[in-house]
Amino acid sequence: MSDFELNRRGLIGAGLIGATMVGLAACDKATLAPGVSKADFAGAIKAMRGVVGDEWVFGDPEAVTPWKKNYIPDPEGRHVPVGAVAPKTVEEVQEIVRIANKYRQPIWPVSTGKNMGYGMATPATPGQIVLDLKRMNRILDVDPELGTALVEPGVTYQQLKDYLEENNIPLWIDVPTVGPIASPVGNTLERGVGYTPYGEHFTFQCGMEVVLPDGQVMRTGMGSIKGTTAWQAFKWGYGPYVDGLFTQSNFGIVTKMGMWLMPKPPVYKPFMIRHDDMADVPKIIEAMRPLRVSSLVANCNLMMSASYQLAMFKRRNEIVPDGRPLDDASVKKAAKANGLGMWNTYFALYGTEQTVAAIEPIIRAQLTASGGEVMTAAEMEGNPWFHHHATLMQGGLNLDEIGLLRWRGAGGGLAWFAPVAAAKGKEAEAQTKLARGILDKHGFDYTAAYAIGWRDLHHIIALLYDKSDREQEKKADACYRELVSTFGENGWASYRTGVNSMALVAEQYGQVNRDFNKLLKNAIDPNGVIAPGKSGIV
Amino acid sequence: MSDFELNRRGLIGAGLIGATMVGLAACDKATLAPGVSKADFAGAIKAMRGVVGDEWVFGDPEAVTPWKKNYIPDPEGRHVPVGAVAPKTVEEVQEIVRIANKYRQPIWPVSTGKNMGYGMATPATPGQIVLDLKRMNRILDVDPELGTALVEPGVTYQQLKDYLEENNIPLWIDVPTVGPIASPVGNTLERGVGYTPYGEHFTFQCGMEVVLPDGQVMRTGMGSIKGTTAWQAFKWGYGPYVDGLFTQSNFGIVTKMGMWLMPKPPVYKPFMIRHDDMADVPKIIEAMRPLRVSSLVANCNLMMSASYQLAMFKRRNEIVPDGRPLDDASVKKAAKANGLGMWNTYFALYGTEQTVAAIEPIIRAQLTASGGEVMTAAEMEGNPWFHHHATLMQGGLNLDEIGLLRWRGAGGGLAWFAPVAAAKGKEAEAQTKLARGILDKHGFDYTAAYAIGWRDLHHIIALLYDKSDREQEKKADACYRELVSTFGENGWASYRTGVNSMALVAEQYGQVNRDFNKLLKNAIDPNGVIAPGKSGIV
Repeated sequence: MSDFELNRRGLIGAGLIGATMVGLAACDKATLAPGVSKADFAGAIKAMRGVVGDEWVFGDPEAVTPWKKNYIPDPEGRHVPVGAVAPKTVEEVQEIVRIANKYRQPIWPVSTGKNMGYGMATPATPGQIVLDLKRMNRILDVDPELGTALVEPGVTYQQLKDYLEENNIPLWIDVPTVGPIASPVGNTLERGVGYTPYGEHFTFQCGMEVVLPDGQVMRTGMGSIKGTTAWQAFKWGYGPYVDGLFTQSNFGIVTKMGMWLMPKPPVYKPFMIRHDDMADVPKIIEAMRPLRVSSLVANCNLMMSASYQLAMFKRRNEIVPDGRPLDDASVKKAAKANGLGMWNTYFALYGTEQTVAAIEPIIRAQLTASGGEVMTAAEMEGNPWFHHHATLMQGGLNLDEIGLLRWRGAGGGLAWFAPVAAAKGKEAEAQTKLARGILDKHGFDYTAAYAIGWRDLHHIIALLYDKSDREQEKKADACYRELVSTFGENGWASYRTGVNSMALVAEQYGQVNRDFNKLLKNAIDPNGVIAPGKSGIV
Repeated sequence: MSDFELNRRGLIGAGLIGATMVGLAACDKATLAPGVSKADFAGAIKAMRGVVGDEWVFGDPEAVTPWKKNYIPDPEGRHVPVGAVAPKTVEEVQEIVRIANKYRQPIWPVSTGKNMGYGMATPATPGQIVLDLKRMNRILDVDPELGTALVEPGVTYQQLKDYLEENNIPLWIDVPTVGPIASPVGNTLERGVGYTPYGEHFTFQCGMEVVLPDGQVMRTGMGSIKGTTAWQAFKWGYGPYVDGLFTQSNFGIVTKMGMWLMPKPPVYKPFMIRHDDMADVPKIIEAMRPLRVSSLVANCNLMMSASYQLAMFKRRNEIVPDGRPLDDASVKKAAKANGLGMWNTYFALYGTEQTVAAIEPIIRAQLTASGGEVMTAAEMEGNPWFHHHATLMQGGLNLDEIGLLRWRGAGGGLAWFAPVAAAKGKEAEAQTKLARGILDKHGFDYTAAYAIGWRDLHHIIALLYDKSDREQEKKADACYRELVSTFGENGWASYRTGVNSMALVAEQYGQVNRDFNKLLKNAIDPNGVIAPGKSGIV
C-alpha cells in the first residue's frame, strides 16, 4: 500500500473525510473544559473553521466520534473530546494555538492518534479539542549519507518505509507495535521503544520544530542557526538542551522532528530463546544483562510470556474455557503446540557474516547455560510468532499485536501497564510475582513481556479485558489502579502511562518534581491550553 | 597517586587549604554584580561563613586568586569572581542558594573548575561568587553488574578510575582532555566528549540530583521514586525529560549525577590513519562517515592536524623561528620527523579477537582507498602521540594536552572554538579553509582537530596565544570573535563555548530560543542568582 493510500485510509478511519459543518446544539451534552463557556467553545470552533476550513473542524459529538475510540478502561467517561481540528500547515497550528489562548479552549495534540492501549487520541481531561496533525504528513528530508530524516507528525512508519524502499535508500526504520498506522513523531514524543539497535526512539531523535503555547515557532538543537546543515546531524545544540521538555508533556506542539535511521547491515540474524518455566524469569534476565550491557546483543529485545504470545493470534477460550483462570499448565500446553516456550526472548545479530559468526557462539553458550533453547530461522521457519519478531527486529511492519484486543471477546479492552526496573533477575522475579497476584485477584491474565533495555527493564503488561462489558471495564479500571499503586509502593513506577492514569503515576514521582513541572507549565503555557492533564500536568 | 592525594593536590592548587578569614576591605577594588551593594556582598559572605565555616569562604581578591586563573582572552577583565565558597554537603549548597537569593548575590557553580580553554572556574559576568563543589567528592555507588556509577561533582576522572582499579571492577571510564583533574559531572554538564564508544558523555548520563534556585532538591529520572533501584538504570523517567535543562545552563546546581560505564572489552586495538596533505580533509571525512554511521568504528574519534599534535609536545619555535608564520612545509617536515602525517585520525576497535579481526579488513580497505596509511601499535610503538591517543581511547588518563599552553611561550593562552557541522567532506573542507584564513589574518596558527561523531563533526580549534603579552591577548580576543561571527554567518555555530563568548554564540541560536531560555530562567530562578551569563542566559 502506498503512503498516500495508507494515509487516506487513516483519514477515512478517523472520519475526517466527508464530514460537514454541523451545528453546536449537540455540545450541550458534552462536558466542556473548566472555565470554558458554551460561547467560548462556539467561538473557538468558529475561529478554527476560519483557519483550516469547515471540513477540518468537528465540533459536535457525532462528528467527534472517531476521536472518542479508545481501549483503556474509562468507566466514568472522562476521556471524551468535545471537538477535533485537523490543520495542514505549521501556520495553521500557530493560529489554532492563538485561538485556544483567546477562548481558553484546551487542545490535545496527537500525531496520528494511534496510541493504542494508552488512550489513542483521547485526552486526559474532559472538554478538550483534539488537535489532529494527521494531515501534516510530509517527509521533508532523508539524507542517505548521514542516515537521517526530517518528518512531520502525520507521517506514519509505513509511509517512511515505503519512501525508503521506493527510493532504494538502504536505511532501516525502527517501528513500535502497530507501526503501519503509528507515527514516528507521536511514538518518539511518548518515548516509545522498538526492536532494532535504534529502538530507544528518543535517543535517536535529532532536532525538533515546536509551536510554543504563545504561537511562536522554535527550532531546537542546531535548527535555529541560519543556514545550518546540521539540524539532523547533532542533537544537543548549545545552552540548555530542551527537546526532552516536549516529550510526554504539554509544553508545545511538535510540528517537525528529525530522526536517525540505521544503515541496513549486510547480515541480519534473528534469534528466539525458549525457556520452559514461568519461574525462569530471573535466569533469563541475568543471562541477557551482560549481553545487553556489553552491546553483544545490541537491539532492544523482548522477552515475551507465552500468554502474551498466544493472545496475539489466539482467543482466550481456545486455551481455557470461559470463566476459568488461565492456568500455567493450559498455557504451557498451548505454547508447546505452537512451538513456544513459557518465555520467548527475541533478539538479533546485525553485522557482517564474520562478526555475526564471531558473536553467535558467545550468546549461544551464555543462553544455553541459562537453560534456554536457542532457536533461529532454521528451526522456526513458518512459525508466526518467530516471523512476527523477525519482521519487527529488522524494521518491518505488521499489525499482529492488534490481535490482543480480541483475547477476551470483540469488546476490545487493552491498557498497558509498564513499570521500570533495573535489569536484574531478582527485580523481574518480584515484579512478575506481584503483577500475577494483582491481576489474578481481579480476574485478569498475566499477558506480559519484558523489554530488556541497555540497563533497564520495561515490564510491559497488557491488561486485557472486554470493554463491551461495563462490569469488566470497572474491574479493569480497579485492577489497573491497584497495579500502579502497589508497584509504586515497591519502588517501581511506569515509564509511560495511559490518559486514565497520568495523574496517578505523576504522584509517584514526587511533589518536588510535580511542582517543577507545574512551574514550567505556568511559565510556558500560562493559560493552560495545551493538553491539560498530560503526564499529570495541568 | 590516590584519589585522596590527588584531590588534596587539587584543593591546594585552588588555594583552599590554608586560607583564613580575611577582611572585606579589598573588595572595594572588585566589581560587584549589578544591583549588589557592598553591604549585600558582605552579608552574603558572612552568612556563607556561618554555613560552611570560615575556612571555606573566600571573600577578598587575594584569597580568590586561585579561581581567577584562566587561559581565555579577557582583555577587559570581565571574568573575575569576587569570592568563592566550597560546601561539603547538599544541605550546605541549599543554604548557600538561599543566602544568594536573600542578598541577590550571584553564584557560579563549578565542579572541579578545570574547564580548560573555556574559562576554568571563572564566571561569565563580573561580581559572582564561585560555588566550588570540589569538596563534594564522594563516589556514592558503582554497580559492577549494571555498569553504572553515581558520583558527586568533585569526583575526578582519576578518582573514579582509581576506585574501579582498586576494587577490580572491569569497567572503563571515558575521559575528556585533562581527565585526571577534570570531573565527570562538570564535563558532562558542559556536554563534553571523550574518546571511547561512551564518548558522548551526556548520552551516557543517567539521573541527576539538582539543587533548584529556590533551595529545593530535585532528583530526575527514576530518582524521585521512593525505594527505586533504577535511578542509574533508566534515563528518562516519566513526563517531561528535564535533565537537559541542567546542562550548559544556569537553572540549578547538580549535586549528584548518574553515569553509565563501558564494560572492558576482551580486545582493544587502537589505530592511527596518516594522511599526508592538509587538503585531504574531505577525503578523510568521507571515508570515516560510513564507518561511524554504521558503528563499525564505534568510538568518538579524533582527526588531529599535525600542528595540533606538535603543539602538545613541542614549542612553536622548534618548528619555525619566532615571528614567522607556521607554514605547511615546516609543519610537514616536523610531523614526518615525528612519525606523524598532516592529519592523523585515531580510532579503535573494541570486541573479541574474532570481531576485531572481522572488522579490521573493512576499515583498512576503506581508509587505504582514501589515501591513508593505516598504522597500529606494531608500527607506532614508542610514539608519544600514538601512545597518547591509545591511552585515551581505552579510558586512560594523561595531561599531555596541557602542553598546548606552552606552544607560544610560558604565558599560557588557549581558547577553544568548536563549531559543529554535519559529517560531510565538503563542510569540513570549507570550515578548515575559513578557519585558516581568519587565524592567519590575526597571526595565529591553525592548531585544530575534528571530533568525528556519529553523524556530526566538532571542529575543535585551539586558539593558542601568549596571555602574558597584552597585545597578543587583545588580538586573540578579536580573532576569536571573528571566528565565531564569520562561522555563524556560514551556518556553523559552536556546540560549547568559553565564558568570554557565551552571549555572542547564544545570539546565533536566534531570538525565539533566547526568549524561551529567558522565560525558563525567570520562572526557575526569578532572582537570577545562579550563574548569570551562562550560555548567554541572564
